[in-house]
Amino acid sequence: MEEALKEANKALNINEVPVGAVIVYNDQIIGRGFNMREKNNDITAHAEIIAIKQASQKLGTWKLDLCQIYVSIDPCLMCYDAIRQSRIKKIYYSADQQISKKKSFQAYIHMDDQVEVIGGLLADESEKLMKDFFYKLRSKNVRH
Amino acid sequence: MEEALKEANKALNINEVPVGAVIVYNDQIIGRGFNMREKNNDITAHAEIIAIKQASQKLGTWKLDLCQIYVSIDPCLMCYDAIRQSRIKKIYYSADQQISKKKSFQAYIHMDDQVEVIGGLLADESEKLMKDFFYKLRSKNVRH
Repeated sequence: MEEALKEANKALNINEVPVGAVIVYNDQIIGRGFNMREKNNDITAHAEIIAIKQASQKLGTWKLDLCQIYVSIDPCLMCYDAIRQSRIKKIYYSADQQISKKKSFQAYIHMDDQVEVIGGLLADESEKLMKDFFYKLRSKNVRH
Repeated sequence: MEEALKEANKALNINEVPVGAVIVYNDQIIGRGFNMREKNNDITAHAEIIAIKQASQKLGTWKLDLCQIYVSIDPCLMCYDAIRQSRIKKIYYSADQQISKKKSFQAYIHMDDQVEVIGGLLADESEKLMKDFFYKLRSKNVRH
């Protein structure tokens, strides 16, 4: 999760909502990503999706059955379903979404989904990143 | 919808599940896509997402408020949420998912989502494409 938080920090540094993700296979990181929605003008450029793409390229398949994903926040619905479709069986996340709880995957998760979800790892650090981001945003709004 | 079905045909031609999508802005197509999951080894290379990315690049923003999307089948959950996040307000789709109904967005759609969904346009044509695809798949399995 520390590595996912490092990725989130990279997003913060370019003024993106600080979310980071890494994908682990056989105890090795094979995919990394941080949120680049604004920079890339791409609604799908979320940390999780960038990390999934990288991992799939590395393994030469979109089937990531033997991988785990670490995300600095609970995934949105789009990312949750991308993770599920990629057959990742284990999601570790750090903080809970504060802003839009009902838009996180948790409102939708299905009992028959074969995905284990473990939340709360290093949550304080992830929450701090989010607070820093929104503090920066508010300060900017005051200045401009 | 005819244009979305043309895209779906392109997927069929490269042995991908035949799904196609186009995005319309001011009566002009500004994004096109067809499913390339297998070809690209990319779980996110769905028709809708490829079309959304193209439209966003064209307009220079991920905010597609004034666009409509035409898809040859009802979107999966990942794509539905990508469409919702991109702020597209109107989804037209052709056939319903036959195989995995509960994995389509319809099981999850929220009353508070500001997205209008109109299904069933040229559904016969889209269903025929799907049937052709699975017929081809079965024939192959017999041969090998």
